[in-house]
Amino acid sequence: MAGNHFGTIFQIITWGESHGKAVGVVIDGCPSGIEISEDEINAELTKRAPGRHPYTSSRKEPDRAEIYSGLFEGKTTGTPISIIIPNQDVDSTPYASLKKILRPGHANYTYLEKYGIFDYRGGGRASARETACRVAAGAVAKKLLKTFEIVSHATLKEIGGETETSKMEKLLKKIKEEGDSIGGVIEVVVPKLPVGLGEPIYQKMEAMLASAMLSLPATKGFEMGVGFGASQMRGSEHNDCFINENGTIRTKTNRAGGVLGGLTSGMPLLFRVAFKPTSTFRKSQQTLTLKGKPVDFTLPDNARHDPCVAIREVPVVEAMAALVLADAVLLHRSSRV
Amino acid sequence: MAGNHFGTIFQIITWGESHGKAVGVVIDGCPSGIEISEDEINAELTKRAPGRHPYTSSRKEPDRAEIYSGLFEGKTTGTPISIIIPNQDVDSTPYASLKKILRPGHANYTYLEKYGIFDYRGGGRASARETACRVAAGAVAKKLLKTFEIVSHATLKEIGGETETSKMEKLLKKIKEEGDSIGGVIEVVVPKLPVGLGEPIYQKMEAMLASAMLSLPATKGFEMGVGFGASQMRGSEHNDCFINENGTIRTKTNRAGGVLGGLTSGMPLLFRVAFKPTSTFRKSQQTLTLKGKPVDFTLPDNARHDPCVAIREVPVVEAMAALVLADAVLLHRSSRV
Amino acid sequence: MAGNHFGTIFQIITWGESHGKAVGVVIDGCPSGIEISEDEINAELTKRAPGRHPYTSSRKEPDRAEIYSGLFEGKTTGTPISIIIPNQDVDSTPYASLKKILRPGHANYTYLEKYGIFDYRGGGRASARETACRVAAGAVAKKLLKTFEIVSHATLKEIGGETETSKMEKLLKKIKEEGDSIGGVIEVVVPKLPVGLGEPIYQKMEAMLASAMLSLPATKGFEMGVGFGASQMRGSEHNDCFINENGTIRTKTNRAGGVLGGLTSGMPLLFRVAFKPTSTFRKSQQTLTLKGKPVDFTLPDNARHDPCVAIREVPVVEAMAALVLADAVLLHRSSRV
Amino acid sequence: MAGNHFGTIFQIITWGESHGKAVGVVIDGCPSGIEISEDEINAELTKRAPGRHPYTSSRKEPDRAEIYSGLFEGKTTGTPISIIIPNQDVDSTPYASLKKILRPGHANYTYLEKYGIFDYRGGGRASARETACRVAAGAVAKKLLKTFEIVSHATLKEIGGETETSKMEKLLKKIKEEGDSIGGVIEVVVPKLPVGLGEPIYQKMEAMLASAMLSLPATKGFEMGVGFGASQMRGSEHNDCFINENGTIRTKTNRAGGVLGGLTSGMPLLFRVAFKPTSTFRKSQQTLTLKGKPVDFTLPDNARHDPCVAIREVPVVEAMAALVLADAVLLHRSSRV
Repeated sequence: MAGNHFGTIFQIITWGESHGKAVGVVIDGCPSGIEISEDEINAELTKRAPGRHPYTSSRKEPDRAEIYSGLFEGKTTGTPISIIIPNQDVDSTPYASLKKILRPGHANYTYLEKYGIFDYRGGGRASARETACRVAAGAVAKKLLKTFEIVSHATLKEIGGETETSKMEKLLKKIKEEGDSIGGVIEVVVPKLPVGLGEPIYQKMEAMLASAMLSLPATKGFEMGVGFGASQMRGSEHNDCFINENGTIRTKTNRAGGVLGGLTSGMPLLFRVAFKPTSTFRKSQQTLTLKGKPVDFTLPDNARHDPCVAIREVPVVEAMAALVLADAVLLHRSSRV
Repeated sequence: MAGNHFGTIFQIITWGESHGKAVGVVIDGCPSGIEISEDEINAELTKRAPGRHPYTSSRKEPDRAEIYSGLFEGKTTGTPISIIIPNQDVDSTPYASLKKILRPGHANYTYLEKYGIFDYRGGGRASARETACRVAAGAVAKKLLKTFEIVSHATLKEIGGETETSKMEKLLKKIKEEGDSIGGVIEVVVPKLPVGLGEPIYQKMEAMLASAMLSLPATKGFEMGVGFGASQMRGSEHNDCFINENGTIRTKTNRAGGVLGGLTSGMPLLFRVAFKPTSTFRKSQQTLTLKGKPVDFTLPDNARHDPCVAIREVPVVEAMAALVLADAVLLHRSSRV
Repeated sequence: MAGNHFGTIFQIITWGESHGKAVGVVIDGCPSGIEISEDEINAELTKRAPGRHPYTSSRKEPDRAEIYSGLFEGKTTGTPISIIIPNQDVDSTPYASLKKILRPGHANYTYLEKYGIFDYRGGGRASARETACRVAAGAVAKKLLKTFEIVSHATLKEIGGETETSKMEKLLKKIKEEGDSIGGVIEVVVPKLPVGLGEPIYQKMEAMLASAMLSLPATKGFEMGVGFGASQMRGSEHNDCFINENGTIRTKTNRAGGVLGGLTSGMPLLFRVAFKPTSTFRKSQQTLTLKGKPVDFTLPDNARHDPCVAIREVPVVEAMAALVLADAVLLHRSSRV
Repeated sequence: MAGNHFGTIFQIITWGESHGKAVGVVIDGCPSGIEISEDEINAELTKRAPGRHPYTSSRKEPDRAEIYSGLFEGKTTGTPISIIIPNQDVDSTPYASLKKILRPGHANYTYLEKYGIFDYRGGGRASARETACRVAAGAVAKKLLKTFEIVSHATLKEIGGETETSKMEKLLKKIKEEGDSIGGVIEVVVPKLPVGLGEPIYQKMEAMLASAMLSLPATKGFEMGVGFGASQMRGSEHNDCFINENGTIRTKTNRAGGVLGGLTSGMPLLFRVAFKPTSTFRKSQQTLTLKGKPVDFTLPDNARHDPCVAIREVPVVEAMAALVLADAVLLHRSSRV
């Protein structure tokens, strides 16, 4: 299958370019009987909207998802759910000057090499705008998970290495003034979920989550539980011992991040995702034209950008976690005869 | 699909338990015309064999893969390649006492909860023995990649935070004396590969690699290029600028690790994988019986274990990288009409 | 995967209900570089439009497909192609009275049993309207195939057993007067195509075609070449002998219908599809209410129906053949190293 | 995915050539808790064994399937089930003379064109021997279905157009004497099964069955219920009216063959499969050498063949039906939240 699908049973396909008519997502495999409304989807979309935070892109698109199919009398029917998000702010003029430039950190070079053609306007298909579709589909996945009392929470834990809110704010302000950008780390916790979700061997819970997270734009790393820290630990420090808490089997610690043998252990799922600094910033950069000629590149004044992409990715990461878990819950139904 | 498959066109399925008759792999989708022999496969298997390193498990199995199908006159025919690796050292006695114990850091609890039944002997399906199949399939993938002049190299970069060989050795010796285990980090470099491998959006090169690596036993993290380090950098520090090197477009630096927009950029592919310390070690641990009764758990004297699982995973990581790349090379053929 | 996908590399997903806002299709895996326009897609859609033939449904929807993504400067870019066909004639009133009836030959009973909910208006997801999406996607597949000089032709060969046009016309007129419906047979010929398309064992060309055809509404049978006739033949009558025609290897006859061992043989591909009579007709029928109470059922006067569904399915069958072949052409690229 | 897989959740992959070491199948996605033994699998294999019927091939292989993985204490564990059937009668000598001949009705021409290499011995991968793997996997599927009280029955209904046993016998005797072969028709009935199995739109029950059946060697046609007969019927003759039988909703007739809208209706599933006459027979045929030179071809005296391939395919057809239904039963679990 081509690369625009995600999931096995609860499966999504997204489509659309940044400056086309719309972006959209089709969910195939969503069970019937889930109540979901456009308002609920749009409430999720609002979380990733620019302008909610002083340091995100000033793009002013009032994203409004519309449900085109798959619902009847407010409930899912088991048929494909098509959600469309019109692109309302599609002035491509600022991008015309970028057409002939290899933009550092961007996809235009590799897309051109792969396909021989590229809709460069606003980043085209490679734009982070595609993640709006993930959030819309994630809203449906969340409603499905709610029926199983599973809720995922994503939080921005670090910006440029800073972990305290006031220091993050200060750093962001400085970065913005300098016309630069900065990286960050998002953490996800799923406090309560059943034992046994995930499919060994190649669809281990952590493999599916890693794949989901590394499919996001600007991600550079993924770790479960103590993650890279585990590489510096001893077994006797790292192993989570089983304990009996009033008849419930748990582990005393949760260094594993809620997985054992690729399956959820019943302990909170815990993972972190590393984001690089946005590749778009105001500072001048040296690069090449498409023809390989050196050129100084400066962003047009009216081009939009976020100094820290991680800020707006928080709801996207949460949506991807929900998509993975919704699929896992359904796959799990085939475990036993 | 159930979780024992990996890949889209060049696809493998592995089967078998640690203490069953054999483990095996079937490769479906391998093109015809690749020369491959049992000897070549076994040469790869030897790299992950125990006993090659003083600090790996003393299990004495002389792994010998046999090719059962898919070859004719020494070449692949386009039909499924079935490779079987008999289990020759299957004394399950040491494991009998473990049958009723929830082993910390192991899969028996979650498998039992998911399936209601578990072949506990030697770890059953959850055993790292499954990775022998990956190495065998990887040997075929490597031969395919060789025709495209693509070669991947995996190296053990860290043990318990140590990066120098002599310090690693010293630490391992100490860990073994203490009856403990230790984590590590493996790095992969693919120095030369074409531009454009990978499929946006959900089969980005890094997403496929992350999924491959996190499907390995004991992995806790994955990062591309500067990885988590990127979260602490500014855009002006992180972006790789394009340069023209005698007519070839490259980037001056390679902080991205060889990907742009999810596609290979032509720069060396570079990623790192974090391994936790082996969950099996001699030190005593507190845990529960299957019935939830607290118990002190000590490994039987004759049970085997590796103090550092990362050591033996080096060729496995390399094989998984080859499997991802072989699939990417074939998927790439559909990019243009 | 859920059932709304078709294809492996050149893959489509369709969505939408008969009386919702729109129906649509997303094509994932279409290579870049194919010229295609909305006009070309709409020219195909016109072929299945009602009103073109005196005996098809009088529904007056001027189907206009819109391309929402995947094109740039008139060519495919390798990204998903989203095509949307608005539903313009969505008066559901005639269907309100059908809401509580188990309609003979229709899907409402089985959908209700499976999903517990059903958008009954106009047949909802089970409506033949979904096939418009197949025709739209097929238009793209046809353009892809054209670059390989592959063209498929579908023809209505039989109506109610009649094979001559004038007798067909006469029969149809009579059927319509009687308020009844009638079955038919469509034949497809692909005169010229390369040897070796199809993937043994489970993706044989005939298996993929059969799956494609039996996924169409109202289909009851599929046969390749002489088809069911082969079951009454001897080997010496049936085998197609190889001959050398000026250096080209062909077979003297083509009873196999252009396949050998599941792969195209280079001879014309030839298959037939049987359609049942439309389940909707004016004659009164005995049936049950949803609650199981016997009831006489007569179609509301203003409900639309086709006396012979096979007539309008001709371009749909042709489109499905194109989708199968487009996928086969791309899969074929992985046959050899 | 390459073509050696079948199924979505309950998925099989088969491997092996006729004259290699063995053929085999891996089942991925079988739920845990199903009792199955090698004896049960071999009992199914015996049904397709030659020598059980005077008119089947005299090949004397005592097929013995061995289970290599996936079971513990007699029950499936949810891990892949690997079944291997050694090839014990692998004298390839009779086939050496066929190496340079394009065999009419055989796959060697198309395989050679597709892959550039072909293991011609005994038909290699294209041999009907592959179907033994389907029967072995089908035995597991049948045990799964038994827990849902679903049983499928396949019967040979026609040989060369004859439907009475004595006439079939007489015809077969004559065919054998003449050194010729003959076609046939197999019918399958699944008398009892739940409503709603199948996944609309592209995984309709009839689409999955058609794909399964047309993937079998020598099949040329598939029809559900009255099948091609439906193309000659009127709607008022064809529609199955709903009736209430002591509180159970059924249809008065079953012309549809147990499906409505692609989902099982609760009425018996009923379909027929057409088989061509075996392409191998003793009568002399005109054909070409690989190099395109005309040649008279006569089967070597010691080469085996069945005068009527349909006879031995009965258990294979039954197995394929079981595989489709087992998968459908599991997919069905995701219909509702």
